[in-house]
Amino acid sequence: MSAAKANDRLIYMPLGGAGEIGMNCYVYGYGPKGKERLIVVDLGVTFPDMDGTPGLDLIFPDITWLKERRDRIDGIFITHAHEDHVGAVGLLWQQLGAPIYARKFTANIARRKLQEHGLSDNTVTVVEPYPAVIDCGPFKVSYVPISHSIPESAGLVIDSAGGRIVHTGDFKIDMTPVCGDPFNTEVWQEIAKDGVKALVCDSTNIFSPNPGRSEVSIGPAITELMRDAAGMMVATTFASNIARLKTLADAAVAAGRKVCLLGRSMNRMVEAAKETGLLTDFPHTIPPEEAANLPRNQVLLLVTGSQGERRAASAQLSQGSYLGLSLKEGDTFLFSSRVIPGNERGVIRIMNQLSELGVDIVDDEDGRYHVSGHANRPDLETMHALIQPQFLIPMHGEHRHLREHVKVAGLRGLPGIVAVNGMMIDLSGNQPTVAEYVETGRTYLDGSVQIGAMDGVVRDRIRMALNGVAVVTLIIDENDEPLGDPWVEISGLAEVGRSDTALAEVMEADLAQFIGRADPKTIRDDVKLEKELKNIARRSAQGEIGKKPEVIVVISRLG
Amino acid sequence: MSAAKANDRLIYMPLGGAGEIGMNCYVYGYGPKGKERLIVVDLGVTFPDMDGTPGLDLIFPDITWLKERRDRIDGIFITHAHEDHVGAVGLLWQQLGAPIYARKFTANIARRKLQEHGLSDNTVTVVEPYPAVIDCGPFKVSYVPISHSIPESAGLVIDSAGGRIVHTGDFKIDMTPVCGDPFNTEVWQEIAKDGVKALVCDSTNIFSPNPGRSEVSIGPAITELMRDAAGMMVATTFASNIARLKTLADAAVAAGRKVCLLGRSMNRMVEAAKETGLLTDFPHTIPPEEAANLPRNQVLLLVTGSQGERRAASAQLSQGSYLGLSLKEGDTFLFSSRVIPGNERGVIRIMNQLSELGVDIVDDEDGRYHVSGHANRPDLETMHALIQPQFLIPMHGEHRHLREHVKVAGLRGLPGIVAVNGMMIDLSGNQPTVAEYVETGRTYLDGSVQIGAMDGVVRDRIRMALNGVAVVTLIIDENDEPLGDPWVEISGLAEVGRSDTALAEVMEADLAQFIGRADPKTIRDDVKLEKELKNIARRSAQGEIGKKPEVIVVISRLG
Repeated sequence: MSAAKANDRLIYMPLGGAGEIGMNCYVYGYGPKGKERLIVVDLGVTFPDMDGTPGLDLIFPDITWLKERRDRIDGIFITHAHEDHVGAVGLLWQQLGAPIYARKFTANIARRKLQEHGLSDNTVTVVEPYPAVIDCGPFKVSYVPISHSIPESAGLVIDSAGGRIVHTGDFKIDMTPVCGDPFNTEVWQEIAKDGVKALVCDSTNIFSPNPGRSEVSIGPAITELMRDAAGMMVATTFASNIARLKTLADAAVAAGRKVCLLGRSMNRMVEAAKETGLLTDFPHTIPPEEAANLPRNQVLLLVTGSQGERRAASAQLSQGSYLGLSLKEGDTFLFSSRVIPGNERGVIRIMNQLSELGVDIVDDEDGRYHVSGHANRPDLETMHALIQPQFLIPMHGEHRHLREHVKVAGLRGLPGIVAVNGMMIDLSGNQPTVAEYVETGRTYLDGSVQIGAMDGVVRDRIRMALNGVAVVTLIIDENDEPLGDPWVEISGLAEVGRSDTALAEVMEADLAQFIGRADPKTIRDDVKLEKELKNIARRSAQGEIGKKPEVIVVISRLG
Repeated sequence: MSAAKANDRLIYMPLGGAGEIGMNCYVYGYGPKGKERLIVVDLGVTFPDMDGTPGLDLIFPDITWLKERRDRIDGIFITHAHEDHVGAVGLLWQQLGAPIYARKFTANIARRKLQEHGLSDNTVTVVEPYPAVIDCGPFKVSYVPISHSIPESAGLVIDSAGGRIVHTGDFKIDMTPVCGDPFNTEVWQEIAKDGVKALVCDSTNIFSPNPGRSEVSIGPAITELMRDAAGMMVATTFASNIARLKTLADAAVAAGRKVCLLGRSMNRMVEAAKETGLLTDFPHTIPPEEAANLPRNQVLLLVTGSQGERRAASAQLSQGSYLGLSLKEGDTFLFSSRVIPGNERGVIRIMNQLSELGVDIVDDEDGRYHVSGHANRPDLETMHALIQPQFLIPMHGEHRHLREHVKVAGLRGLPGIVAVNGMMIDLSGNQPTVAEYVETGRTYLDGSVQIGAMDGVVRDRIRMALNGVAVVTLIIDENDEPLGDPWVEISGLAEVGRSDTALAEVMEADLAQFIGRADPKTIRDDVKLEKELKNIARRSAQGEIGKKPEVIVVISRLG
């Protein structure tokens, strides 16, 4: 690491994850203005929903800015294996082409992503934790183990001639995390002692006023619950929460139950955790066939679908049976999880279906069976005090979280800046300044194609869902004369409206009347004719069913 | 009321509201089996969402069963003026045709609904509260004032030769409700003293373990908040929560602020409450123009949109300005409300937009600024103890709420039955029994048309939103020969896929190839031809963009 040059600068820019919770992607750069060497921290996805992004498969950051500077990227650093941090590695790696760094477990998951996309996985380098250092262009980066709800999470220490940055990644302060690394106060003190320029810090739980609780604290209550339950026990949580899986499985064994894993990601995550040596003493698991034949009070099903996902194991069980297993009166279903805002409907649907089966539902309303993986407000204040940075840059939060985080820090004299996606921050001076606004946004994976959020594809889908569709076809002959009347097909519209005649017929009659009177100039002009047919079709439907559909006009000209 | 006859029976059947929260509609009947005279309690709506019911205007119960027994309906009783109880009166009254009973404020709202549908409002009779009695066929019905989050809510005492039923309607136990009727323990004791057969009881808050708090309890904290706020103050709550509007407006006055109402329903509800004499001392309100010209710390905007509704005043303010008013750094926005599950995304969107404007957001995370309108578990137990019915029938809840309510009552020796929509319960014996399962469901208002939930209209919309649409047109001439090649138009699909050519062109080429090879029999057979074109179009798209669209095929045969 050379000494700082006068016209070199240190920059930070989020491309995803700042102003939203999801699709994390942060860029750091050091060097002459506009020629900085760059590193990327995390390449995550976010999940689509019917409300705003129907039919999509995944959502991830628009990395156009990075692609155009591909030759300046020295490395990609993945902090941990959650989908919102590692999920886009397979999708985006080819566009960036830089080496990927991650700890062993995260690297295992990242390699699976690359393989799924037919890419070589030897671009992933497994890194050792701090004090090991990765030399990467003008940067020296260290992975500092930190506690979170997935094993081997890491905060990054990012050193350059511009100063030291601490990028926390997702974290909580947990001294007894059951599986994975405890929070290590001494290490952070050591890292902080020579001065830290900027703390780029998780903001997810800034609105939670009480100190967070340790993973180990929920074991006894879960064991008691499993002991007391008379029938079959089912528990769901995020499959990547290996510590929780272990807590649940150990509780099951203590309660005389055998553990059966259900759901693809549940099996895959446990496999990855075993492969990487993280789960050495996970209880023996049994296949579904064996679980089905055991007395019900000797079984724990550990299942996917804590967020109400429609095709996960929990949804399938709530609808009847899954792999020969079915639930009934006397069984107990534990949601060892918190509903992510926006997923309530799906979770409630499953709860009610379970209720109809007579299954008792235990959720986390009182916090007995779940703890969060993120630092609460007092824990964030602890982190601020440990690192004592020159300033704070909140990340991993919606706008309201980032803003509150700056406010909370300000109360104790720590200055901060709200930097959202696309805001390039110059960290070179004594306080952070906005260097530039870069155009950013979201890219969609739809089937096998990557499309831009502004391409209008999703807008059209939403319009069709809200308004229904009418297709108007018209044939014009060689002499520019209409051949027959316009024809209407509808989809997603009421068949019959006010006049008790088929809607399509009413529309056809109105369109035929127009065509009968239209002047030859209009008939010859595709653009004008289409516009008129569209208007008449919409007006006709409005009169008939009180609703203006999306109209697709197909004019076929013969000869 | 004549004495019970041996073969008369007393029945209860929910058509909406039991197994869901929303669109309440309950039927009671008394008389010979299959010839019972009927009364209807509540005609409510529920609101559509993009997830499952895109593009609809309203959702309400399928009342086919009632329509077919129209001559047996003696009256319609509306318990209170919330949309999920009164909202379908205008839409459904013509199909039922019976007199409507309601207390004064509720009647005012019900009449507005009828007028909106061009119906006479003289079918609505204003009733006096208990001990006044409405004679209605074999029933005598009394309206017992009860506290809730809207004025003039009522529980119903429904007497017949089959015994007394107490139908609580929505309620909470509030002795100091600010506006409207306090809970009256003595009256309920009097009603209970001669024995109650069935308590049909609100279940909404059965999972809330602590006793509910009074409306009056939140006034001081709100006043303090409004005093301390430096800038403009904005507060949102349900417009129908007249007591809350008064609490908020009084707090504003105490804090030296003038009150400006924003949003159509806010103005309409305050107007209705004044018309019916419920709001006699509501503070003077000012128009938006005046509010815009006052110092910011002298204004309270009381606005609609507590649930994140896209077109309400709160959403408009969060997006910039509304009626000349705009928010900025230093202003405070109070959500004096709770987010109804499923509405989180909309509310969070507004919160983040406000955060971007620099507005401080205060919500109800700690219960300081909002109390619920429904009885919590201990309050429900109080009601059970007051009424001491032979048995409990929980209503107004999802399946999990109804089931939990029966469980909670059972712990203290009160038997109950989970009766969901369409379950006809015979209340004649010493315990409730299921008499019959009636086919029920939901009816949709879409534009101006009522459509059945099973008509497939919404299913088609959802499919188009998830999969996109391709329209395939083909012209066949008089000799059953294809005239030109098939033509493809797409909507809601990526324009270009794997082969870097327009998707529509790739599909056209695949379809043309098929047509070129198709035997004349296929070309002559509309059904077969359509099926084949659909399959090829879907397969072609799948290869190109990894996604199978909905395909609309239009075959035009000339001559």
